[in-house]
Amino acid sequence: MTHPRPTLLLDEGRCHANIAMMADKAAAHGLIFRPHFKTHQSLAVGHWFKEAGVRCITVSSQTMAEHFASEWDDITVAFPVNILEIDTINRLAPRLALNLLVESAESLRFLAGRLHSSVGFFIKIDVGYHRTGVDAGDTATIDALLDLARQCTQLHFRGFLTHAGHTYGAASPGEVLAIHRQACLLMAALKERYQEAWPQLLVSVGDTPGCSLASDFPGCDEIRPGNFVFYDLTQQHLGACESRRIAVALSCPVVAVHPRRNEAVLYGGAIHLSKEALHDPQLGTIYGRVARSMGLGWGEPIPGMFVRSLSQEHGVVVGPEHEIADLRVGDCLPVLPVHSCLTVQLMRCYTGLASGETFATL
Amino acid sequence: MTHPRPTLLLDEGRCHANIAMMADKAAAHGLIFRPHFKTHQSLAVGHWFKEAGVRCITVSSQTMAEHFASEWDDITVAFPVNILEIDTINRLAPRLALNLLVESAESLRFLAGRLHSSVGFFIKIDVGYHRTGVDAGDTATIDALLDLARQCTQLHFRGFLTHAGHTYGAASPGEVLAIHRQACLLMAALKERYQEAWPQLLVSVGDTPGCSLASDFPGCDEIRPGNFVFYDLTQQHLGACESRRIAVALSCPVVAVHPRRNEAVLYGGAIHLSKEALHDPQLGTIYGRVARSMGLGWGEPIPGMFVRSLSQEHGVVVGPEHEIADLRVGDCLPVLPVHSCLTVQLMRCYTGLASGETFATL
Repeated sequence: MTHPRPTLLLDEGRCHANIAMMADKAAAHGLIFRPHFKTHQSLAVGHWFKEAGVRCITVSSQTMAEHFASEWDDITVAFPVNILEIDTINRLAPRLALNLLVESAESLRFLAGRLHSSVGFFIKIDVGYHRTGVDAGDTATIDALLDLARQCTQLHFRGFLTHAGHTYGAASPGEVLAIHRQACLLMAALKERYQEAWPQLLVSVGDTPGCSLASDFPGCDEIRPGNFVFYDLTQQHLGACESRRIAVALSCPVVAVHPRRNEAVLYGGAIHLSKEALHDPQLGTIYGRVARSMGLGWGEPIPGMFVRSLSQEHGVVVGPEHEIADLRVGDCLPVLPVHSCLTVQLMRCYTGLASGETFATL
Repeated sequence: MTHPRPTLLLDEGRCHANIAMMADKAAAHGLIFRPHFKTHQSLAVGHWFKEAGVRCITVSSQTMAEHFASEWDDITVAFPVNILEIDTINRLAPRLALNLLVESAESLRFLAGRLHSSVGFFIKIDVGYHRTGVDAGDTATIDALLDLARQCTQLHFRGFLTHAGHTYGAASPGEVLAIHRQACLLMAALKERYQEAWPQLLVSVGDTPGCSLASDFPGCDEIRPGNFVFYDLTQQHLGACESRRIAVALSCPVVAVHPRRNEAVLYGGAIHLSKEALHDPQLGTIYGRVARSMGLGWGEPIPGMFVRSLSQEHGVVVGPEHEIADLRVGDCLPVLPVHSCLTVQLMRCYTGLASGETFATL
């Protein structure tokens, strides 16, 4: 494969398989499947979810909600509501079933005073990640929020939502599962407590590591994973996927080869891959792994061959002597990204291997 | 100041002062000033350099060269020539004085066979950064490259170019200066050796830390710093600038406040700031520092108040108790970026404080 500039490639077959796998899992457990679209950001990839039976989605900004509102009529914005975007919210709310995330009385009061039409809201619950949300045990705050919401006819309580993002810090798949189980237990306890007053309430969970590895979701009604659509080295490192599931790779021209230090320099840097890194006990810091080129696409990662440093446009690859010796200026190497969401965001588009189609992001 | 979404602000006064400072320094030392435009990426900011007397520029890709070719007729692409872009090179070369970077016989032979018109080239020299280039002591390789170039009438040798990027790893300003002096010495030795055969040859150096701190440039003819136009926390941390010189800040809405852990959550994440981090011995990992809001702009960084973690859209700020206690959902905080080049690239545009003008990047 040859690309004159860094080009993000999508293996459609792998992507379809990832979508089918997660849709099947949700169906098998009777869960609503509300995939997060922040990873692929594409209306065209969205169609593949529709073909898999998906009817509702998650996004992470009002901007992304507006982007997808042309084709989707049930959207949860899984980010603490940004009250400065009230105009966007009021523009979107009459057009679709819009769900917001609330964690403070301050935001809820603001919405109550400024909403022009109905919106749903979830209370964001913190099950241990400690980024956002009301502590799962803090029912006094939850009661106060629900009392406030009862006074506003435009605000409709949908349930409790959490993101157990601390699975990303897990040392093993077993630890991911322990975090997932703990999150389910805490959320199930809230459901039990509030279900009598709010019989329709839903419990929504949704990190990709947990949803990929778990084989049960006790007390949950909905899952919202996103990254699984493409996966990446972070997920593989956690044990949440095998490398053959990683559906995107950045094809990078080789611009220099330095056999004496077993290195090559790629046109492909921080503005293409992002500076997200993995820390491998043997190899050190990894900004991407080089996979074997196979026809138009790629195969397995080459052991010991990885991007060890990134500048704005340069990537420095280190690898086994015989692999580096085989490289020539003008070759292209497929690099698996550490964090596919950020690589997609930086590249702004990707090219389908099978179709040759260009997929535009937001 | 209030911005509904993360908004990158440019303090034009600081930027003009940075440009004037570096232009004056180049003039005082009789150096050609060929600023790198990869940081600001804007035609409009380019005009300010023209007003400061600049006639030639540096970029890091053929794409960027094409972008600036509409207004500049002397451009060095400071990146090992990517032979897969020969068509772009052939399109650009007749229109302007285009200089390429070469470090291998392989690339030079390719160019010799495929160029349609004249281009200049610099031999990239490695003075210790070990990213790209011919080792400064490897005159056998340099001789071989020059012999090859003599056989091609389209290739015009301009001189030796280096980027002492290892200044970014320096522990002190003194260490930056030691690296700078060593780079100048190595480049001056090459100049002396080759000057008789190539009397017009130039020595070009150009990292922002070195160019900011150094008060002499022995043996150098040209400087190519780029980041200084905006500076950032990395430069301040190195001692290459004071914080009052940092000319860009990301204004981020506050979406949650967690007084119990002295934290606030911003709408402003890895897709806005980039994952570039600083490692502070006291504070730990820093993805940005919060500055004091002042009118439409910002003042000094608030001690101990910084972005401690980033997700795709979230930034978690930690700060002194009284600072966090004063925050309200809907406030906006100005965040100084760790690496302004990457933040600009991600944001794609920035807004002038004084003019209100939107500056579009590439």
